[in-house]
Amino acid sequence: MNKTGYEELALDMLREHSDTIDFYLNKKYCDEKTGGRACEKLYRAEKYSLMAGGKRIRPALVLEVCRIFGGETEAALPFAAAVEMIHTYSLIHDDLPCMDNDDMRRGKPASHVAFGEDYALLAGDGLLTDAFYECAMNPFVSGDCAALAAGILSKAAGSYGMVKGQAMDMYGEDNRISLEELVELYAGKTGALICVAAQLGAFAAGVPADDEKMKDVTAFAQRIGLVFQIIDDILDVTSTAEELGKNPGKDRENHKTTFMSFYDIPKAMDFARSNTCEAVKIMEKYSGSEKLCALAEYLCNRKK
Amino acid sequence: MNKTGYEELALDMLREHSDTIDFYLNKKYCDEKTGGRACEKLYRAEKYSLMAGGKRIRPALVLEVCRIFGGETEAALPFAAAVEMIHTYSLIHDDLPCMDNDDMRRGKPASHVAFGEDYALLAGDGLLTDAFYECAMNPFVSGDCAALAAGILSKAAGSYGMVKGQAMDMYGEDNRISLEELVELYAGKTGALICVAAQLGAFAAGVPADDEKMKDVTAFAQRIGLVFQIIDDILDVTSTAEELGKNPGKDRENHKTTFMSFYDIPKAMDFARSNTCEAVKIMEKYSGSEKLCALAEYLCNRKK
Repeated sequence: MNKTGYEELALDMLREHSDTIDFYLNKKYCDEKTGGRACEKLYRAEKYSLMAGGKRIRPALVLEVCRIFGGETEAALPFAAAVEMIHTYSLIHDDLPCMDNDDMRRGKPASHVAFGEDYALLAGDGLLTDAFYECAMNPFVSGDCAALAAGILSKAAGSYGMVKGQAMDMYGEDNRISLEELVELYAGKTGALICVAAQLGAFAAGVPADDEKMKDVTAFAQRIGLVFQIIDDILDVTSTAEELGKNPGKDRENHKTTFMSFYDIPKAMDFARSNTCEAVKIMEKYSGSEKLCALAEYLCNRKK
Repeated sequence: MNKTGYEELALDMLREHSDTIDFYLNKKYCDEKTGGRACEKLYRAEKYSLMAGGKRIRPALVLEVCRIFGGETEAALPFAAAVEMIHTYSLIHDDLPCMDNDDMRRGKPASHVAFGEDYALLAGDGLLTDAFYECAMNPFVSGDCAALAAGILSKAAGSYGMVKGQAMDMYGEDNRISLEELVELYAGKTGALICVAAQLGAFAAGVPADDEKMKDVTAFAQRIGLVFQIIDDILDVTSTAEELGKNPGKDRENHKTTFMSFYDIPKAMDFARSNTCEAVKIMEKYSGSEKLCALAEYLCNRKK
């Protein structure tokens, strides 16, 4: 596919799903939260980060995979919301002074800059916890499906997934880690949530956990998750704050081990491209997967 | 019941359930966590707080309610573990410098003192997230039950429950709040998790959500949850650090609105006692509830 082709397809798909997700998050999550003056700031902080104009890649993945496998959007939406809420919590906590100490996010002041560290901590805790309500109480799937969905989501986000990746990342700031460890780190830090997003999309479409389709979306998502992180590493050394919407150069500043510690930019791009090719090959056999495959290409070539 | 009577019964029950819970948490949660050097500190931090000698009141409530309603301990244990993991996460995050800034917990250095703020944040996030895995993947209950359990647990812990209570607590540091707001604050901050513990115990025993028994344990737990917080407030002004295992006098230092802002000690104790009486009246009609009722009396008369 030529460059304009996939870019247009992917952006089209992201725009369409973003609108659906934003509407759902606003209506079902933010607007239903009413409370007295004493909890108003918490709810404002949660909404501030959740509706800060994220690209909605993870929830779009939930909706698009569900669509490809013949499911209904309404069944996928609670899962999509849960994934985006967990993604948002992770950004809020990552930006905190005791972690990456980043004062910009998505081109706006980070949560702790806008609301103070205490509210940023709580808003993150709230979004993370509420995500499991969305997931477990999904009214459009069976109890078995909702329970399993909450189970794989917590596994992906918790001490075997994203939180573990974050801990390994911290270890990598002070210690030289191997390429093998880095791949494990990225599988947790970024890969796990992208992977579970694709799996939840399949669940919402009624695909059983041991089905071939589930294996395929998992293998697809593992690859685009890895590519996503490689591109992040490249952009951190090549971009400006304006392009990125957050401060670049933080990795070197924090002495973090990244892909750039092992590869130069052309080699890293090669690695990203070959993983993208593999991902596309896995999913292109499914009819209607053009936009999903275009997303893979788009993520590999993104500039922010 | 005379004082020695209920104290002995309650402590007996707590000891018995503590052993069961500690064994489960160690074997099923801590020991199964193996990872390379890069995540070893995270897992150590999680275990440090989880196995720090907590009184295990919440998980004991899960197990005891399950027992009273004829359920099996093995079905209640994953729920009990989940509740204790969430309780532990909340203590770790509450102690952080940006929150209560407390350097002692359960007579030991707080997590951020022992492991640093970054690891304390992550250990809290990990325990909170992993709790939903325990709950949603409980193999001894139906998918419907597990999903609903994860749903009510996240509602109790999240932005409508514990996190909301915490936000209201912060508001109450800088602002004068009403007694009505304080009761709502406490229902979230302490009450919600105690309440859901009792409900999960009933769930584990197969009690339907709309059953009379569910209403009774909920009403019981709401009352003992409120009493628990009143006694906390009293102990904060009357105890020493040695008795308490954490620093007392923090409430006044932080200008927090507490029960002590509205009542003197005798009045607050009266209020706690009458709520305890009501709680006992609700549950004493169930055969085998002696220990649970003794726990209510014990919590009202505790010295730490």
